[in-house]
Amino acid sequence: MSEIDAGMARKTSQLGDEIVARIHQLAAISETPDNLTRIFLTPELRAAAELIMSWMVEAGMSARLDGIGNVCGRYEGERPGLPCLMLGSHYDTVRDAGKWDGPLGLITAISCVADLNRRGRRLPFAVEVTGFADEEGVRFASTLLGSRTVAGTFDGAVLETKDAAGISMREALLKFGLDPDRIAASARARGDLLAYIELHIEQGPVLEAKNLAVGVVSAIAGATRFTAKLTGMAGHAGTVPMALRRDALAGAAECISSIEQLCLQDVGGLVGTVGHVQAAPGATNVIPGHARFTIDMRAPTDERRNRSVAEMVRRLEAVAKRRDLELQLDMTHQNRTVPCAPWLKAQLADAVAAEGYPVFELPSGAGHDGMAMVDVADVAMLFVRCRGGISHHPDEHVEPSDADAGGRVLLRVIENFRPR
Amino acid sequence: MSEIDAGMARKTSQLGDEIVARIHQLAAISETPDNLTRIFLTPELRAAAELIMSWMVEAGMSARLDGIGNVCGRYEGERPGLPCLMLGSHYDTVRDAGKWDGPLGLITAISCVADLNRRGRRLPFAVEVTGFADEEGVRFASTLLGSRTVAGTFDGAVLETKDAAGISMREALLKFGLDPDRIAASARARGDLLAYIELHIEQGPVLEAKNLAVGVVSAIAGATRFTAKLTGMAGHAGTVPMALRRDALAGAAECISSIEQLCLQDVGGLVGTVGHVQAAPGATNVIPGHARFTIDMRAPTDERRNRSVAEMVRRLEAVAKRRDLELQLDMTHQNRTVPCAPWLKAQLADAVAAEGYPVFELPSGAGHDGMAMVDVADVAMLFVRCRGGISHHPDEHVEPSDADAGGRVLLRVIENFRPR
Repeated sequence: MSEIDAGMARKTSQLGDEIVARIHQLAAISETPDNLTRIFLTPELRAAAELIMSWMVEAGMSARLDGIGNVCGRYEGERPGLPCLMLGSHYDTVRDAGKWDGPLGLITAISCVADLNRRGRRLPFAVEVTGFADEEGVRFASTLLGSRTVAGTFDGAVLETKDAAGISMREALLKFGLDPDRIAASARARGDLLAYIELHIEQGPVLEAKNLAVGVVSAIAGATRFTAKLTGMAGHAGTVPMALRRDALAGAAECISSIEQLCLQDVGGLVGTVGHVQAAPGATNVIPGHARFTIDMRAPTDERRNRSVAEMVRRLEAVAKRRDLELQLDMTHQNRTVPCAPWLKAQLADAVAAEGYPVFELPSGAGHDGMAMVDVADVAMLFVRCRGGISHHPDEHVEPSDADAGGRVLLRVIENFRPR
Repeated sequence: MSEIDAGMARKTSQLGDEIVARIHQLAAISETPDNLTRIFLTPELRAAAELIMSWMVEAGMSARLDGIGNVCGRYEGERPGLPCLMLGSHYDTVRDAGKWDGPLGLITAISCVADLNRRGRRLPFAVEVTGFADEEGVRFASTLLGSRTVAGTFDGAVLETKDAAGISMREALLKFGLDPDRIAASARARGDLLAYIELHIEQGPVLEAKNLAVGVVSAIAGATRFTAKLTGMAGHAGTVPMALRRDALAGAAECISSIEQLCLQDVGGLVGTVGHVQAAPGATNVIPGHARFTIDMRAPTDERRNRSVAEMVRRLEAVAKRRDLELQLDMTHQNRTVPCAPWLKAQLADAVAAEGYPVFELPSGAGHDGMAMVDVADVAMLFVRCRGGISHHPDEHVEPSDADAGGRVLLRVIENFRPR
């Protein structure tokens, strides 16, 4: 099948119809009526959990909430108590969110199990589906709380952090009906999990540009973030000749271009972004004496990212030195790259090909629960195309035929899963 | 005398001592005790006017306020009623101002007349000294109100503009004790004025870099200002490959560098400044879909400025086109270049040389009352070095020896003045 054929809309199966219907049904549970906002440990999260658990039970699974509010469904294998293939994604959202980021992976997994159940199919392993209660980290400025709990890396200190209203996470858990002291007990043992596989929308434009419904994720890219401050000398826009200036913003502009060039010239998936910039004093007729900007750099391997970050720092230092500006670079965030396990990628690729799609690998530039789950299991991800690469926005959209494609591929992955 | 000698501190004359003492005396009249703020039509402006008029009278001049609040001193020539050489500068300040910007020119002129008067020296023309009541335009966001009144270009419509407290200029004039209907009558006829010569601090670093106490201004540079808006496509900093980005801030950075390059390569005194920049949405991990920045371009001739502005626009359009960004450029301000009259510059240069200083010409990048006075007389300006080029700041400073040098040069200009 050519790439062009792969991209054409097809008739959806029962699987796709159910997935799309449930996406809209779950999206109706929102803090605000006109858009979608579903935050960790809110009544809306609770209502969503109840709905998800009802779907799990309907799919022949046991369903429960764990200590952090994750929804945990289990479909036993050929005999009870077997290690499981864990599927899942998160069911919390950002504010003013799209409907697909998180729920698509969770709902698709449940629908796959429901399909197995309808056919009475039992596998030589259990299938578990986890709906993570907090991936986005909107409420407590600390992400991946759900998957960290499962992976056993939940940091108890965050229980004392407070949300914008001054409510601590501990208080919020109690109000939600959960016992904060039971979080540690929700950690899973490595031997319980054969693998963790997550289906998620791409949140980027690559699959659309390639005209592909699905893609196999090579790695979840690590990120390094900096705040850069340049200090020069403020001055009157009319009275200081160009040659005597120490213009902090002109220096920042050269730095921003330098970061862009470094990333454009890279062939290994390096991306660099300056998302925020500020010049001070900030008046039309004053040469900026100060400029600050943020830097976000990501690459599919830590080695490449670290090397690129070092090169970026060298280039910025050279710009500052040549311009007689003072440069201060503060690293504000860093997380490792999580490679998807080759043996799992191979099984995903087999399923993609068997469903008639070209096999295409791409890195995930966004963070996902797999970043935490890797501490308890090998991880893999399947991306589904989303329109225009738009995410974290009400315009986020997945074509029903693509949701269906994702469902069929995931079902095939499950049915053909061979533990390592 | 070498440039190095010219830059060395010398003993000040009685002229310099008086100028510096009065600078500090006038600076004590401020709205706020800890810094200097003296705004148009305030009680502090009135108190300053009274002090200045007392100095004028002491120097043998008649003194009065005109319709806008300008302090007008007149020292008759060999017989009463002769046309005058007008000297002056402004006595209003910005907020948190330096002591020298404006007052130096006004006080020096009065001290020069006082010196003539002490010696009983009468010239074949009158000497007038004008302290302009509003050059900075802080209160009513409309600059050069004092000099426009004298030049007969005061726009009556601005009488209805209001300050931040909702007080109209008309009301403020009445409260100050002035009759708004008499402003037009304060305009001077071209035949009354032989020339307008202003001494002012440089407000830039050129004289300091050249190690010169004084400089002859070639022209008051015109300025053209724009707001530029670039629109691309916002996106996730991790998920959009470099080649698929339409990053508005990366585009803005290239534009800022392009403006800087254009000005650096110019050999005719072109300066360009981007003082303000903003990227939206402005988050560390989001590719900016929008960027806006200001542009301020100045050159010693209108022809050069207009040509450079056109070239700048072409370059920015090319950047936007290549990056598939939408560019909107709005001109927010434009004012003409005011060349200093060659015959006056020659007389200033003669006086500079006669006082033993190297003759050096430089453009004024900042605006001055001469920009309005040119409509009623030929204008010239003498710049005095200020420390670090710093102005509009409490650190604004002129060495007493430089204030003295300015006074001696100006006195020589007056005594040797030959009408055209």
